[in-house]
Amino acid sequence: MMALFLRSILCLLLSARCFGSPFFVPVEDKEALVQETEGESPYGSLWPLPQTVQISTQVLYIPPAQFSIVHGAGSTAGPRCVVLQDAFRRYYEYMFGYSTSPKNDISPSSDRLLQLQVVVTSEDNECSMYPHIRSDESYKLTIDENGAVLQASQVWGALRGLETFSQLVYEDSTGAFLVNFTRIADAPRFAHRGVLLDSSRHYLPLKTILLNLDAMAFNKMNVFHWHIVDDQSFPYQSVLFPELSNKGAYQPFTHVYTPIDVRLVIEYARSRGIRIVPEFDTPGHTTSWGNGQVDLLTPCYQSGKPTGSFGPINPILDTTYSFMQTLFHEISLVFPDQYLHLGGDEVDFSCWRSNPNITKFMAEQGFGTDYRKLESYYIQKLLDIVTKYHKGYVVWQEVFDNHDQINPDTIVEVWKGENYKEELCKVTAVGLSAILSAPWYLDLISYGQDWQKYYKVEPLSFNGTVEQKALVIGGEACIWGEFVDSSNLIPRLWPRASAVAERLWSSKDVTSLGDAYSRLIKHRCRMVRRGISAEPLYTGYCDHEVNV
Amino acid sequence: MMALFLRSILCLLLSARCFGSPFFVPVEDKEALVQETEGESPYGSLWPLPQTVQISTQVLYIPPAQFSIVHGAGSTAGPRCVVLQDAFRRYYEYMFGYSTSPKNDISPSSDRLLQLQVVVTSEDNECSMYPHIRSDESYKLTIDENGAVLQASQVWGALRGLETFSQLVYEDSTGAFLVNFTRIADAPRFAHRGVLLDSSRHYLPLKTILLNLDAMAFNKMNVFHWHIVDDQSFPYQSVLFPELSNKGAYQPFTHVYTPIDVRLVIEYARSRGIRIVPEFDTPGHTTSWGNGQVDLLTPCYQSGKPTGSFGPINPILDTTYSFMQTLFHEISLVFPDQYLHLGGDEVDFSCWRSNPNITKFMAEQGFGTDYRKLESYYIQKLLDIVTKYHKGYVVWQEVFDNHDQINPDTIVEVWKGENYKEELCKVTAVGLSAILSAPWYLDLISYGQDWQKYYKVEPLSFNGTVEQKALVIGGEACIWGEFVDSSNLIPRLWPRASAVAERLWSSKDVTSLGDAYSRLIKHRCRMVRRGISAEPLYTGYCDHEVNV
Repeated sequence: MMALFLRSILCLLLSARCFGSPFFVPVEDKEALVQETEGESPYGSLWPLPQTVQISTQVLYIPPAQFSIVHGAGSTAGPRCVVLQDAFRRYYEYMFGYSTSPKNDISPSSDRLLQLQVVVTSEDNECSMYPHIRSDESYKLTIDENGAVLQASQVWGALRGLETFSQLVYEDSTGAFLVNFTRIADAPRFAHRGVLLDSSRHYLPLKTILLNLDAMAFNKMNVFHWHIVDDQSFPYQSVLFPELSNKGAYQPFTHVYTPIDVRLVIEYARSRGIRIVPEFDTPGHTTSWGNGQVDLLTPCYQSGKPTGSFGPINPILDTTYSFMQTLFHEISLVFPDQYLHLGGDEVDFSCWRSNPNITKFMAEQGFGTDYRKLESYYIQKLLDIVTKYHKGYVVWQEVFDNHDQINPDTIVEVWKGENYKEELCKVTAVGLSAILSAPWYLDLISYGQDWQKYYKVEPLSFNGTVEQKALVIGGEACIWGEFVDSSNLIPRLWPRASAVAERLWSSKDVTSLGDAYSRLIKHRCRMVRRGISAEPLYTGYCDHEVNV
Repeated sequence: MMALFLRSILCLLLSARCFGSPFFVPVEDKEALVQETEGESPYGSLWPLPQTVQISTQVLYIPPAQFSIVHGAGSTAGPRCVVLQDAFRRYYEYMFGYSTSPKNDISPSSDRLLQLQVVVTSEDNECSMYPHIRSDESYKLTIDENGAVLQASQVWGALRGLETFSQLVYEDSTGAFLVNFTRIADAPRFAHRGVLLDSSRHYLPLKTILLNLDAMAFNKMNVFHWHIVDDQSFPYQSVLFPELSNKGAYQPFTHVYTPIDVRLVIEYARSRGIRIVPEFDTPGHTTSWGNGQVDLLTPCYQSGKPTGSFGPINPILDTTYSFMQTLFHEISLVFPDQYLHLGGDEVDFSCWRSNPNITKFMAEQGFGTDYRKLESYYIQKLLDIVTKYHKGYVVWQEVFDNHDQINPDTIVEVWKGENYKEELCKVTAVGLSAILSAPWYLDLISYGQDWQKYYKVEPLSFNGTVEQKALVIGGEACIWGEFVDSSNLIPRLWPRASAVAERLWSSKDVTSLGDAYSRLIKHRCRMVRRGISAEPLYTGYCDHEVNV
């Protein structure tokens, strides 16, 4: 049953091409698929599944010692394109670096593949740029008797294609490396495919963050939403306000991200086609900010006297805005991405309500007792600051919910689990772009194969016009840090986030849980082999287990 | 509130001693407790909490370069007691191995502690033995102006006391090592404090198993219940039946436990005072056995014909019992513990029911259609075999539930979550010993601080006489392997199993969640520092985070 079902999907995917080529035998018509057994996917270990795939039964042998990944003829990229140079080395190692014995090459020379030629076609190949919201990640990959050619308009598509090529190479039972004749044309369904890490509730060592960027690249995810500070700690080491981390980090010398750390993360991500969208969440979630910046937070009152405790950012002082102006100027320069995440979620009004100066200000402004107006007042001033630095911004959905007027270029992140479809409809109805994270809070663990739950989500299943749906630019797998640090982050996040990765990359029609399971268990073992301690989906084994 | 509450508990714990000593100032009367802050435990990082503890405000400095752990005068153990020699080195390293700089010792010489003297008092100190169900783990520890003395009847108590001593040593803000004047008298509440690992649903590399034994020792747990084989795979490499793992392991060369591996595990555990109770679960959970041993499993039938699939062990063939006799003879010799776990859970009768030969046998034996009688028939023959090899046995509760007559020396493991108290009552009512694991299935994960749920369990809260309760010999934290392998085992198990460890070691009265939390977060960071990637309980940090 599964096999039949898969074959229908396959035909859909291959569409017109399905029977168009005299050479490429559609996989569903042949028995000779690699390792085809009951429940095996015709797509092997490809993850996320490319938009169109044709895999032939013909194979090429790859002798690792002679094989190289090279800039192909006519490519606009060359050895100066350091992003590609780095990727060539990296993917060679992923494919062959674990080969333990020198291979005696006994394959017929006619069946050998000695090169993967990477051709970047656009003059504007973006080799020296940072990836961005409009990065072109499409690519085409052809492997046949003429060799292997990976073609992409920009360097970003080449990176994605290298990952795909590496997923097509496999070892036979004698340890020989093989790849089947293959044609792939691929591009992501959504432009924004993110992972949120929270480095405030627990500090995440740099190595953990870099490892997670590796895992993201293996899953073709392209945005690291870095929820860098929050109530619990302020690990971001500011050059202009060093007291913020000196007094707000868990430990000011060991539990901080220095400017060098941040640059490393940004460059490591860039070379994998991953954007860094840092979040400095205000006006709530800022307790740790108050330690290193006096008068920034609102003093809470009881019976007319300050209690000594503090609430959200104090929105009525000029000093607040001059501080924000300076801090966000620094942030704008440190983080190259076009977008900053400004937070804006879960603002608790009780402290503002208790404070007589705020009450007075509310009256002066004619806000009545509607503290959402005060929140909007603050947010608007912050948006103005950030706009001045030529940055776009992402905000949590409350900013949209509580804000009457919202700039048309705002991106709204929908995170509340209840009625997220309705929220998507509302946000896009007024022409705003949306990112969906509500169904993908991966910190909320439960027993069993919950990856299926994440996989089944269809981001565009809300009521709305075609135009509205086009405004959903993607989604994010979020792993909040209350119960997560470097001890358990990687196995808790992966491969559960892989389910989100495929949902955001592959065609809407790719929905078979059986086919996904078959590919995902192999993909998971591949991640393990590449150093990611991804947890198992269910019983079974990897040839190379995680060795602690 | 919490502080007051803690103090009352403390008085209970200190009992008569509380005000009996002119020298030891009960901690609750002084402000000068180490790092006492709101919510801090007066017991620092002790875990599990010893039976009686007195900690003074007076401190001794420990200069690591001069400090040593030695056999004290009058000890029956000496350098030939390799278990202690190994423990001395190990605990020195746990305490001081992370010290990064040579210390300039500027402490007054009168306030220095240069030795911990370990005195084993019994002639029968068990230095060369394996730990066993009646091992004496009690010890006394005194640290005062006369030095530090750890006294124990047997080597097992000395091991527990070394762990306690290592938990009392701390660093001040200058990096100097300190220990307070302390008196502790300690012994476990329950004799059997186990962890179950499942190496069949996923193979667990040797290093993971050894690491888990380290963690168990840090928590004074003393039984590794090794659920070594099951339906999914048979990684135990049998000398007499090599085909069992050759054909039943996930991979016969890499995913097996060789005889040397098993011996290593046993010896590594022994040196930490941990017993290995291996489980060879039959007659169900044996699918993998059938691959390497023909005619062992019951052929299932449909419409009078064999379907080609197999059910539980075939209980009607003589060959089954001759096989079991030989295999369990090997097992009895390989595993030195007095006890084997024989499984006996979840036997599915449907295959037996389908098989005409079994139907015939049932009729001959006068079993009617009560397949529980057939199960009992099998189990009784197995128990007879094991008894012949002078082994005791543990079985899952179904063996008790389905078996009319049960040998009086059987230990019954209660695992079913519903009505486990009733089951404990029933088992002990007929005079059988019981092990409780039902409330401690740690593979069943959920969001939040579920350690509290495990901590709150009181194993003796069932209805029963004093005699009945004395028959509950302990409990086990079980982490079944469906969703667990070496990628996530350690952070998923620890520190959640630490909650079980304290429940089984400490006094029944030790129930404060606040006090436990304060100690457990420190204990968790200590485990991390010693190489165990235990996950966080909640927001916060360790001085030394897990570095992936």
